[in-house]
Amino acid sequence: MLNQSGLDKVFHALSDASRRAVVERLVRGPASVGTLAEPLAMSLPAVLQHLAVLQDAGIVTSQKIGRVRTCSLVPGALTDPTAWLAAQRLPAERRLDRLGAHLASDHPTQEQS
Amino acid sequence: MLNQSGLDKVFHALSDASRRAVVERLVRGPASVGTLAEPLAMSLPAVLQHLAVLQDAGIVTSQKIGRVRTCSLVPGALTDPTAWLAAQRLPAERRLDRLGAHLASDHPTQEQS
Repeated sequence: MLNQSGLDKVFHALSDASRRAVVERLVRGPASVGTLAEPLAMSLPAVLQHLAVLQDAGIVTSQKIGRVRTCSLVPGALTDPTAWLAAQRLPAERRLDRLGAHLASDHPTQEQS
Repeated sequence: MLNQSGLDKVFHALSDASRRAVVERLVRGPASVGTLAEPLAMSLPAVLQHLAVLQDAGIVTSQKIGRVRTCSLVPGALTDPTAWLAAQRLPAERRLDRLGAHLASDHPTQEQS
């Protein structure tokens, strides 16, 4: 469970489109720094700085094997910000959520059973 | 639907514990600036600056009636960051989500029907 300063860091890390693009890429699997840098159209030092912010926030971890540094997402790193946002929904929105979840669930209806 | 710069602003607005405290208070209903300032232990200008960041991000709106400025949450303002975070969960986490939602839904079991 993140404390307030941990949540500060995670939300700050996500407040930049390039860093969100890195997260979106890493959801699909680990990637080298070079692979992550390719679509970002910025200098390697700039990319490394973004990666440092993501690592400092506990969202990304990296491992150097030989000459290649591979980054991956830290499992569960986005759970706390997700939970915080979910808790801030207005009462009316929460009722709609429950209705939507109920309609989306594949619960057997009387007709089907 | 927020663009990248809109998402930047929302996540930035949420990257501060005092601003998150304001959001948590406003989920329970509109409040005057004075009410919002009370638990924050900071100067009124500092509170107003935080409110300006939340307003700029489209999370909070305010209305001045007489001498009192009342703030409220903008409905749906947190939908896009919530959706973005939900989309970034790792495949294994998503499978657990679905299992959890299924178990939590009050779907009738064969025993009950």
